[in-house]
Amino acid sequence: MLKKVAIGVDIGGTLTKLGIVDREGNLYAHMDFSTTMHKGFGDYLDELKNQIEGLRSQIDFEHEVMGIGVGAPNANYYRGTIEHAANLLWKGIVPFTDELKTRYDLPIYITNDANAAAIGEMIYGNAADMKDFMVITLGTGLGSGIVSNGQLIYGYDSQAGELGHVKIVDNGRLTGLGIRGGLEAYVSSTGIKRTVFYLLSDMMDDSVLRDYSYNELHGEIITKAAEDGDPIAKAAFEMTGKILGEQLANFTAFSHPEAFFLLGGLAKAGKWIFDPTRKHLEENLLPFYKGKVKLLPSGMMKKNAAVLGAAALVWNHLQE
Amino acid sequence: MLKKVAIGVDIGGTLTKLGIVDREGNLYAHMDFSTTMHKGFGDYLDELKNQIEGLRSQIDFEHEVMGIGVGAPNANYYRGTIEHAANLLWKGIVPFTDELKTRYDLPIYITNDANAAAIGEMIYGNAADMKDFMVITLGTGLGSGIVSNGQLIYGYDSQAGELGHVKIVDNGRLTGLGIRGGLEAYVSSTGIKRTVFYLLSDMMDDSVLRDYSYNELHGEIITKAAEDGDPIAKAAFEMTGKILGEQLANFTAFSHPEAFFLLGGLAKAGKWIFDPTRKHLEENLLPFYKGKVKLLPSGMMKKNAAVLGAAALVWNHLQE
Repeated sequence: MLKKVAIGVDIGGTLTKLGIVDREGNLYAHMDFSTTMHKGFGDYLDELKNQIEGLRSQIDFEHEVMGIGVGAPNANYYRGTIEHAANLLWKGIVPFTDELKTRYDLPIYITNDANAAAIGEMIYGNAADMKDFMVITLGTGLGSGIVSNGQLIYGYDSQAGELGHVKIVDNGRLTGLGIRGGLEAYVSSTGIKRTVFYLLSDMMDDSVLRDYSYNELHGEIITKAAEDGDPIAKAAFEMTGKILGEQLANFTAFSHPEAFFLLGGLAKAGKWIFDPTRKHLEENLLPFYKGKVKLLPSGMMKKNAAVLGAAALVWNHLQE
Repeated sequence: MLKKVAIGVDIGGTLTKLGIVDREGNLYAHMDFSTTMHKGFGDYLDELKNQIEGLRSQIDFEHEVMGIGVGAPNANYYRGTIEHAANLLWKGIVPFTDELKTRYDLPIYITNDANAAAIGEMIYGNAADMKDFMVITLGTGLGSGIVSNGQLIYGYDSQAGELGHVKIVDNGRLTGLGIRGGLEAYVSSTGIKRTVFYLLSDMMDDSVLRDYSYNELHGEIITKAAEDGDPIAKAAFEMTGKILGEQLANFTAFSHPEAFFLLGGLAKAGKWIFDPTRKHLEENLLPFYKGKVKLLPSGMMKKNAAVLGAAALVWNHLQE
C-alpha cells in the first residue's frame, strides 16, 4: 500500500535538517547538510532537492509525498518568502516556495520554527485535543506560536507571535534587535545565562558557575549546578521562572489558552524551570483564570521537533 | 418585501438598551429600560420580551427577526451564560440564552460588550475588509475584542481579550479586581481622571482642573481644558497616550493586527488621545512592524455602538 508522507525541512543558519514524516509523527529518515555550502539560493535549492531524493531512496516502502513543510527564520507564511533573515546568507526577500515549486509540483508551506512547533504540537504533540494554546520555544531566543479557534494566528502580515520581543521593563537588557527590556533577554537559554552572570555580580555565594566564562557556560551546566544545590544556579532558575510566569499570566489575558507548552533548551531543565514558572503564573493570573491554565512540557521535547513541526504544516493543510 | 432584522440588546448595570438593526447597521427603533426594576431573572426576561415586542410594533415594515444578540458583562459565549457579574443583581451563573430561548425560538448569542463592539466593527464599522484587528474600548475600564483570521478570539473558556487587566507595572495603581498595575487603571475614562489627580499632586501649574472634585471631574472637562491649553490636562493626555501606545506596541507582537480601533468615552477626545498614542505606538513598534499598524477611530463612534455590536453577533453567525 502506498504510504502518505510529508517532507519536513528546518532551515537554520548553520544546518538544514530534513526528514520524512507520516501523519502520526513517525520519522522514517532524516539527515542534515550545511545551509552555507552554496553561495546562490538556486544552488541551495538544487542541493535540497538532491538531499530530499536521497532521503526518499533510503526508505524501503512505497510512498507518496503529500507536500513539503519548511521552518525558517523570518519566513512569511502568506507570501512563501524568507525576508531579510539576519542569520542566513540570502539577502533581501527570497521567494522560497515559488522557487522550490519549480522543482517540485507539490503543496509547499513555510513559516517560522515556533509556528511550525505549534502546529506540530497540534498534529502529533500534546495539544491534539486543544483549540486554544501557545507553544513557547526557549532556545537562543524566545519564540512563540499561538493557536486560537484551532488555527495558528499569523496576523496581518504573517508576523504574529513575536512574544520574545514584548517589552517587560523600561531600560532593561539589550536584545538582538537593539531594543531594551525584551522578554527573550531574560527568558531563553541565553537569558538565563545572562541572569547567572548578573547574579554572579550581585551575590557573594560560592558557586561552581564562577569557574565558567560566558562563552563556556550553557544550560546543562546550570541545570547540573542547580541539582547539586548551587545557590546561584537555583536563584537564576527562580528569577527566570518568576519573569516567565508573570508574563504568561499577562499573555493569558490575550487569547486565554488552555495550556502553555514549553519547548527548547531551557525547557529541558524540567522542574527547575517548570516549578517556579507555574507558581508565578498561577499567582499572577486574574481571578477568573486561576486554576484554568496549564503549563505543560511540549510533546515534541524528545523528538526532532523542528523537522516534525515543519512536516506538520502539510498535514494541517490536508485536514482543513 | 420581508426585511431581515436582528435584535441587539446591551445589558448594563443600570440600563438595558435594545434596538432593531438590519444587516447594513441601520437602527430602526431603540429604547431602554431599567435593568434593576425586576428582582428575579425570569421577570427581567419577561420585561425584555415585552420591550422587544413593543419595539417591533413601532416599525412600520414587515420584518423577520433573524436572531437576538446580547452584550453583557461577564458573559460566556460558549455557554450562553452571565457568570458572577459584580454589576448585575443576578448572582452566580445565569443561563441567559437558554432561558431567553424558552421565550423566543430564535438563534440567541451573548458575549461581553468589547467583543460585541469588535464584531460590530467587522460587520458595519471600519474593519469590514480586515481579518486581523483589535477594538479597544476606553470607558469606565479598558475592554478589548481581538479578531484574527477573521474570527473573534474567545479563547478556551470565553475569557480572551481582557487586556485592561494586563499588568504594566509592579506595585502600580489598584484596579477594580484588587490587582495592582493593571492597564485600565491608567488608560480608560477613569484612568485619565486618576492621572489628572496624580498630576495635580505632582505639578505646581495653575489649572482649571483644580476646581473639580474627583467625583465631579469627567472626560469632557479634561478635553475642554486641554483645548484651552491647560498644562495639567495636556500632560494627562500625553501620559495616557504614552502608556497606551507602548502597550499597543506590545500587543502587536501577539496577533499582529492591521489596525487598532479606539472606541468609548476617552476615544471621543480625538486628537488629544490619538496623537500621543500613535506617536508612542510607532516609536515602540518592533522594526518589522513599523509603519504597518494603524491606529483608527472606531466606525461605531457616533452610533449606538453597544446595541449595534450586539446585533452584529447575529449577522456574523449568519454569514459563517
